[in-house]
Amino acid sequence: MSLVLIIGDKTYSSWSLRAALAMELAEAPYSEVLIPLDRPDTRARILAHSPTGKVPLLQTEEGPVWDSLAIGEYLAESYPEAYLWPRGEYARAVARSVCAEMHSGFMALRTHLPMDLKRDQAVDEMPVDADADIRRICALWAECRGNFGEGGPFLFGHASLADAFFAPVAARLRSYRVALPEVAAAYVATVYQWPAFQRWFQAAQAERLE
Amino acid sequence: MSLVLIIGDKTYSSWSLRAALAMELAEAPYSEVLIPLDRPDTRARILAHSPTGKVPLLQTEEGPVWDSLAIGEYLAESYPEAYLWPRGEYARAVARSVCAEMHSGFMALRTHLPMDLKRDQAVDEMPVDADADIRRICALWAECRGNFGEGGPFLFGHASLADAFFAPVAARLRSYRVALPEVAAAYVATVYQWPAFQRWFQAAQAERLE
Repeated sequence: MSLVLIIGDKTYSSWSLRAALAMELAEAPYSEVLIPLDRPDTRARILAHSPTGKVPLLQTEEGPVWDSLAIGEYLAESYPEAYLWPRGEYARAVARSVCAEMHSGFMALRTHLPMDLKRDQAVDEMPVDADADIRRICALWAECRGNFGEGGPFLFGHASLADAFFAPVAARLRSYRVALPEVAAAYVATVYQWPAFQRWFQAAQAERLE
Repeated sequence: MSLVLIIGDKTYSSWSLRAALAMELAEAPYSEVLIPLDRPDTRARILAHSPTGKVPLLQTEEGPVWDSLAIGEYLAESYPEAYLWPRGEYARAVARSVCAEMHSGFMALRTHLPMDLKRDQAVDEMPVDADADIRRICALWAECRGNFGEGGPFLFGHASLADAFFAPVAARLRSYRVALPEVAAAYVATVYQWPAFQRWFQAAQAERLE
């Protein structure tokens, strides 16, 4: 299977990071095409690959699969032995619920604290709605860790698509220096010790942006 | 399996409609709890069931599954013989891609043309961004119908979660009297002839809203 992942800047593109972590979870061999964002030719370059004009997109031998969530499900099906979702039926349903919640929500967090892997600075004042998003996410992490977190330090024990989806949030919480309850702080540390995340993070540090 | 689906007003709650259509596709026996939206006690009533404060939510014997997409995946796994996703591996990946695109996108359409199943009236002037969303959706429907639509009038031939996800868009296009290309117009007609959609639509017509 020949797979090409189309992504944006590693420093900023949180959805690309999610898809790349899914590829790492699957241990799927793939090549990468990085399209720098916010340049005059960005949209045209993305549209050459992607019907939505957005990254990430996974080019497969049969055609494109777009959107990080669909890419995750595609890989979960194609690499069943990698268990991208938790093994328990209900754990899997909860993992999908939290990924879907991330996929369509937390707009205040995403707007006010965009991912910037080179940042290490608090916001001057945390907007109330972003703070509410953070509190919901911390509650959600604590629930996953408490109910399904045996067998490892990730949300559902072993690393899964749920961690791929929340790793960019962990990165925001650290880079914006957000004070966190104990369980959430431990989970952020887990993400930063995850080799798949570290590879992307290091690449982002080395990335030259115009 | 005892399932309870928590939904909002049938006239307005497009995400509830998606989840209900998924239940119909699965032929899953369930009961329904309808929480009227936009009332003083709405949020408190939803929070009594749902950790996100949003509908839809599916209460299972093991606990809640929230978000229409996670509910769809849960039902697809629980009722494999119902084939909620298309049977072909790549068709399934595309179906998930279009559902994910709907799940996180088309914000202009959703903002300017909210679902209202009692409406039968055009907008005074179609906003440019909503029009762009509609053109993208029509292209997407044409692509699905053209590449995967053999064997039936739905997006992937037989009715699938992709139709559950786009039925509320079909309803908007009809109720706001949007002029459509042939393939899209035919697909809207297909949705309106779908018994599962018709049952919800009829219930919406009978719904008394304060």
